[in-house]
Amino acid sequence: MAVNLPPPRADQLHRVAGVSLGVAAAGIRKPGRTDLLLIELAQGTQVAGVFTRNRFCAAPVQVARHNLEHRSQIRALLINTGNANAGTGEAGLADARQTCAHTAQLLGIAPDQVLPFSTGVIMESLPVERICAALPVCVKQLSEHNWLPAAEAIMTTDTVPKAVSRKIQLGGEALSVTGIAKGAGMIRPDMATMLAFIATDARLPLALLHGALSHAVERSFNSITVDGDTSTNDALMLMATGRARAPEIIDASSAAYLEFQAALTEVACTLAQSIVRDGEGATKFITVLVERGATQAECRRVGYAIAHSPLVKTAFFASDPNLGRILAAIGNAGIGDLEVGRVELYLGEVLVAQGGGRYRGYNEADGKRVMGQSEITVRVVLNRGTEQASLWTCDLSHDYVTINAEYRT
Amino acid sequence: MAVNLPPPRADQLHRVAGVSLGVAAAGIRKPGRTDLLLIELAQGTQVAGVFTRNRFCAAPVQVARHNLEHRSQIRALLINTGNANAGTGEAGLADARQTCAHTAQLLGIAPDQVLPFSTGVIMESLPVERICAALPVCVKQLSEHNWLPAAEAIMTTDTVPKAVSRKIQLGGEALSVTGIAKGAGMIRPDMATMLAFIATDARLPLALLHGALSHAVERSFNSITVDGDTSTNDALMLMATGRARAPEIIDASSAAYLEFQAALTEVACTLAQSIVRDGEGATKFITVLVERGATQAECRRVGYAIAHSPLVKTAFFASDPNLGRILAAIGNAGIGDLEVGRVELYLGEVLVAQGGGRYRGYNEADGKRVMGQSEITVRVVLNRGTEQASLWTCDLSHDYVTINAEYRT
Repeated sequence: MAVNLPPPRADQLHRVAGVSLGVAAAGIRKPGRTDLLLIELAQGTQVAGVFTRNRFCAAPVQVARHNLEHRSQIRALLINTGNANAGTGEAGLADARQTCAHTAQLLGIAPDQVLPFSTGVIMESLPVERICAALPVCVKQLSEHNWLPAAEAIMTTDTVPKAVSRKIQLGGEALSVTGIAKGAGMIRPDMATMLAFIATDARLPLALLHGALSHAVERSFNSITVDGDTSTNDALMLMATGRARAPEIIDASSAAYLEFQAALTEVACTLAQSIVRDGEGATKFITVLVERGATQAECRRVGYAIAHSPLVKTAFFASDPNLGRILAAIGNAGIGDLEVGRVELYLGEVLVAQGGGRYRGYNEADGKRVMGQSEITVRVVLNRGTEQASLWTCDLSHDYVTINAEYRT
Repeated sequence: MAVNLPPPRADQLHRVAGVSLGVAAAGIRKPGRTDLLLIELAQGTQVAGVFTRNRFCAAPVQVARHNLEHRSQIRALLINTGNANAGTGEAGLADARQTCAHTAQLLGIAPDQVLPFSTGVIMESLPVERICAALPVCVKQLSEHNWLPAAEAIMTTDTVPKAVSRKIQLGGEALSVTGIAKGAGMIRPDMATMLAFIATDARLPLALLHGALSHAVERSFNSITVDGDTSTNDALMLMATGRARAPEIIDASSAAYLEFQAALTEVACTLAQSIVRDGEGATKFITVLVERGATQAECRRVGYAIAHSPLVKTAFFASDPNLGRILAAIGNAGIGDLEVGRVELYLGEVLVAQGGGRYRGYNEADGKRVMGQSEITVRVVLNRGTEQASLWTCDLSHDYVTINAEYRT
C-alpha cells in the first residue's frame, strides 16, 4: 500500500505539444499488461538526461547515453518493463540497438535518434522479437493524451502509476511540464533515478535545459532512498519541444527561467517522493531534515545514515520511538569530529535528544504519538554550521522482504 | 534459528588461569534471566582492547576506554545486558562510574581498575541500584569454570550463547585461549565488535598483545556484517594473565608468537562468525570472497556492497539465484574505474557471470542448487590486481523485521 499516494487522473495531466505516447502489451514478462512505451518527439525537441552511476550499467543505458551524446536530434524514446537488459554483455547491446533500429524504421528516422530504456529483471536476455512485434501497436496508439497509460506501462513493482503535471504562464501564454516515473525498490539514485521522463513545451537552449535539470534532480531524485541500492538502469530524461507559444527562455537569471525551473523542480520532486511513497512495502513516508551542518555533504551523509539504517527503518515500521537507533545512525555517519553533545534530535515537533542524550522533558508518549503517523519528519540539528539537506525515505516492513524474496516468482 | 551453530558445551571451554567469572540475575530488563557478568583478573594481567567508532559511543565505552588508557592494572570487567547506557549524556557517565565504584569496593581494588560494558536498549537510564544490588551475587559466584554461564549472561537477541576455546602447546606447556561474545543485530563492527571478551594465560608484553589483537580483529570482527549498523557499545577486550607455565613470548617474529596469534585469530574468527550465524533472522551463512583486486580496501568495498545490499540479502533468503542483484551491488561499490567486462562472479563453484554479463554455460538449475544450501560462498574475481578480502554475512528475512520491529515490546 502506497503512503498517501492517490493514483493520478488522466484529466490532471496536461498534454505537451510535440510529445506523443503509445503503449502496447508485448508480453515481455507477464501477459495481458502493457509493458512497452514509445514516446515520439517533434522535430527540434531538445533532450537532456542523467544516468545511473552503477558501473554495471545496463545495455540500454549505454546505448541511450551514446546516442544522446552523438546526435543532436533525438526523435523517439522506447521503454520496456519486465526485463532490464542489464548484465547481458555484448549481446545485450546488440539487442538494445536492434529495438532502436526497428523503431526507427517504423517512424522513418535514424536508429541513433532513438533512446532505449529498460527496467525489470537483471541478467536475462531481452525478448527482442516480442518487442518488435508489439512496436506497430505503439505507433498506431501514438497520441498527446496518453500520459496516464504511459505511466502505467512502465510500472514494475509499483502499486500506483506515477505522473504529475504543472502549468505556468509565461508572457501571457501557458507552458506545460508533465512527467512520469517508475520505481519502488533498488532506489538510491545517484545522479539519476529510476526511470523518469519529463516533457515540456517550453523553448530554451540545451545549456539552460541542462542547468534546470541538474537543479531539479539534486532536490528530488538525488534526495530519496528506499533501500540504498542504485539500479543498473536509472535514467531521467527531460524533453523540451519548444512548441508552446510562450517566448523562448534565453537567460538563466531571468524570472521566466526561474519560474520554469521551479515548476520543473516541483514536478521532479513530486515524482521522486511518489517513488518513496510507493517504496516496496512502505507504510510510512519519512522526511529527514539535517540542519546547521558545516557542509551540505555532511548533512546528506547524516541524512542517508539515518535513512539507510535497517534498525531505524524497522522501528518506523513498528511505530516504536526507539530513537536511540537514530542517534546511533548519526554517530555512524562518518563525521570524525562530530560533537555529539551539540546535536539536537526532533521527531516532528518533539525534542527528543540533546546534550548527548535523551532530552529531560521528552516523554515516550509524545514520541509514540508522532511515530504513529503515516508522514513523519525527523529533524537533526548539528549546530556546527549553516548548511542543510532534506531527504525522503520510507520504513522497512515485512512486505519489503516478501516483495523482494518473491520478485521473480 | 541460528545457521549451523550448535550451543557450546561447558566441557569444551578451557579455563584460563587467573580469570574468574561470576553472573547474576539483576532484573535489568527482564526478570529471571542472568544479565550481569563480573570478570575478575589476577594481578599482573595485561589488557588490550578495541572500541566502537560510533561518535555516539556509550557511556561505559567512554569510561572503559579512559580507564584502560590511564591505568596499567585492570583487575575487573563488569558487563550488563538489557540496557546499553548509550545516548544518556552526563548522567550515563556518572551511572557507569558508580557501578565501577561499587565493584571496586566489593573486590578491594580502585574504581578505575574496573572496565564497564553495557549492551541493550539505547537512550534509557541504567538501573544502577539493581546492578549494585546484584553485584554481591556475582562476586560470590566467581569461578574459573564459569565461561558458559558468562556467555549466556551477555546475550540480548542472541539465540545461542557464543563461546569458543583453543589450547596450544608452547615449550611443552599448554596455553589456553578462551573467548565469549554476544551480538546478533546492529552488526557492522568498525575497529571493534559487539561485546567480546577473550582471555589467555599466555605471558607476553602489552605491545605484542596489541599486535596480535589487531591481526585477529581485522580478520574476524572487522570482516562481518549483519545489517551494516555499527553499535554505540561495541568493544572487544583481550586479557593475558601470564599464569601459564609456558615461557614468555617476547618476539613478534618467533614461532611461539605466530602460533599464539593463529590460535587467537581462530578464536576471534569463530566468535565473529558465530555472531553472523546467529544474525537476527538469519537462515543462511554467506561468505563473500573478493579476489584479484588492486587494493585490499577496494576488495572490502566490493564485499560490503554485496553484503549490505537488501536486495541481495532478500534473494538469499528466498534461495533465488537472482544474481544480477550481485552484479548491481558490485557496480555500486564506488570503484570508478572498474571494468565490468573483466569481473567474474562465482556462486559456490558455479561460474555465473563474466564478460559483463551472464556466463554462456551458466544454467539456473545450478544457481538454484547452490542458493538452496545453508552455507553459501559468493566469489568475485575483479582481475585487476593481486589483493583479496573475505567477509561473512547472512540473509535478510522476515524474522529480521519482526525481531527489530518488536525489540522493545
